[in-house]
Amino acid sequence: MSDTTELSSRRERLIPILKEARAQAFLITALPNVRYLSGFTGSNAALLITHSRALLFTDPRYATQAPQESDCEVKIAKGPLVKDLSTWTKRLRLTSAAFEQNRISFEAYSQLQEHAPHLRLRAVAGSVEKLRMTKSPDEINAIRAAVQLNSTALQQALDRLKSSTREADLAAEIEYRMRRLGAEGTAFDTIVASGRHSALPHAHPTDAIIGRDQLLLIDMGAKVAGYSSDMTRTYVVGKPARKARRMYGAVLESQLAAIDTVKPGVTCAAVDKAARDVLRKHGMDKLFVHSTGHGLGLEIHEFPRIGRKDKTKLEVGMTITIEPGVYDEEFGGVRIEDTVVVTGNGCEILTPTDKSFTVL
Amino acid sequence: MSDTTELSSRRERLIPILKEARAQAFLITALPNVRYLSGFTGSNAALLITHSRALLFTDPRYATQAPQESDCEVKIAKGPLVKDLSTWTKRLRLTSAAFEQNRISFEAYSQLQEHAPHLRLRAVAGSVEKLRMTKSPDEINAIRAAVQLNSTALQQALDRLKSSTREADLAAEIEYRMRRLGAEGTAFDTIVASGRHSALPHAHPTDAIIGRDQLLLIDMGAKVAGYSSDMTRTYVVGKPARKARRMYGAVLESQLAAIDTVKPGVTCAAVDKAARDVLRKHGMDKLFVHSTGHGLGLEIHEFPRIGRKDKTKLEVGMTITIEPGVYDEEFGGVRIEDTVVVTGNGCEILTPTDKSFTVL
Repeated sequence: MSDTTELSSRRERLIPILKEARAQAFLITALPNVRYLSGFTGSNAALLITHSRALLFTDPRYATQAPQESDCEVKIAKGPLVKDLSTWTKRLRLTSAAFEQNRISFEAYSQLQEHAPHLRLRAVAGSVEKLRMTKSPDEINAIRAAVQLNSTALQQALDRLKSSTREADLAAEIEYRMRRLGAEGTAFDTIVASGRHSALPHAHPTDAIIGRDQLLLIDMGAKVAGYSSDMTRTYVVGKPARKARRMYGAVLESQLAAIDTVKPGVTCAAVDKAARDVLRKHGMDKLFVHSTGHGLGLEIHEFPRIGRKDKTKLEVGMTITIEPGVYDEEFGGVRIEDTVVVTGNGCEILTPTDKSFTVL
Repeated sequence: MSDTTELSSRRERLIPILKEARAQAFLITALPNVRYLSGFTGSNAALLITHSRALLFTDPRYATQAPQESDCEVKIAKGPLVKDLSTWTKRLRLTSAAFEQNRISFEAYSQLQEHAPHLRLRAVAGSVEKLRMTKSPDEINAIRAAVQLNSTALQQALDRLKSSTREADLAAEIEYRMRRLGAEGTAFDTIVASGRHSALPHAHPTDAIIGRDQLLLIDMGAKVAGYSSDMTRTYVVGKPARKARRMYGAVLESQLAAIDTVKPGVTCAAVDKAARDVLRKHGMDKLFVHSTGHGLGLEIHEFPRIGRKDKTKLEVGMTITIEPGVYDEEFGGVRIEDTVVVTGNGCEILTPTDKSFTVL
């Protein structure tokens, strides 16, 4: 999906990072970063980027695919990629290179030291991930497509709710619908949690029957053209307890308040605070045990983190989730999650699924 | 599924490895290895194993789950696990520790160096993975369950073949059936490849129509109780070309010959050679571009590798795939894959799905 101009302009944004790291080249080993900077989608790759060249290393399985997808110079390696890459650092007479310290194994790092002893290695972390925070129009379109497919799949699965008696059945139905609608797969393991299970923020679907008169929490994501969606909805099946209504009302108010603060220049911490303040007013802030949201794109969790400590200022094009939740171990949990993109004067909510209190 | 006796006896098998590495303790960071040695299934964990103690580090999300699943001493860490683990190496007065060099990030390694400067760190690779090659009866039962579920799901999906017009539809149907039958998920991305697509050993399902009078290759795996299955079948939809029959016959003969050589004491290379020799006889050895198989268990690809260079001798309890294939870019590919477990005098084929030449 990325055109050549976009790819090369992404790589140009690395130059100041190289300067700051006092390095002549950047060695990229995290696959989503490789894809972002080269266009290549294969499962084994490394990139070497200098001021004037971009070399993509992969293995013989991708000899045809790599030059089709990428505008970089493709080098097919027969052994460990880092070995060939080291040889090229010599040929290019490089004396220093930055590497991604949290996304390279100790083993690959050691191979690099061994095969490129002439290189001064500079450890950096999160540099490319920070570039990826702000999405291009093409990227936003890909996320929008994933979000819309996601919402359609949920509706189709809920229309067939009667055929799903267990949590795992409904999860299977949701994933099937996403696939049939054209998703490459799921963006993460689908969560379908009924009753008390919904109080676990990362519950796995079980063989438990979807309970009557109980909360039902669904957290799901599709992958489309490499980009992820992420949505959570909470319903009541049958007759809602007063407590469920109260929790739902507080979480929805919290979510709307957080969305309302999203605009360029506002810090992530301020968005998180907006969500938390509303829950405090309802005496439920202690039940909100995670952060308010996160960026998403080629990965399901990206920068920024919409949490208490993230001072990142929102910028136009950042695409983030807003997902406050409250969890009561004895009763269940409510979470409402949309994906929004930051615009010039606020944000656009990409998620079309209704979020008013709904009884199934 | 693992009982306490099995877990502690697995950990005892680490002692000779520690001796060889001249280390007093073993730091385990690969999650499947953590699970194998501790029983813990969470997504964030590290293990510190000494001659007398086993400490499991995880985060607050797993405070309840970890002691339920594991017989190790559970330590809940608030920051990076390696930091708390480093503190414990001091408390235990350790002066040396082995670590998994290919399954730890450079960053975690650096944190270890920083927080535990008193430790001499010994890099090892593949030690726990080698222990995992030979499966216990409980593990074999788990794999058997995954394999059987897998076969049932394929049959159900093929019974509904008419409702799947595109490759992606059939992949969705297969994954749905696995889920409905109780799989935790897929063991890997399902491959459904029609016509020429089947010539790509790792094809992704596309929107292409499943072609009449063409090959249809399906490679699928389920995850059950943490363990994987892996099966490939190739069919012809409609009227088979003579070439399809010829390729199929050669691959089936090759697969049966390889299975026939499997018994304790035989090298993996010899099994690979048996498959390759048959294909050479048919003039198709050059079209067989991958190895004959691999171990499987908590991960879809485990040791040993059934390839030309693997001198590992098969042992009772090893559970491996046998999957020769031939690929003609202009026509398509045929692969037949079963999972077998090595027994005292040969092997048992776990996969119940028929593999005679079948026209759909």
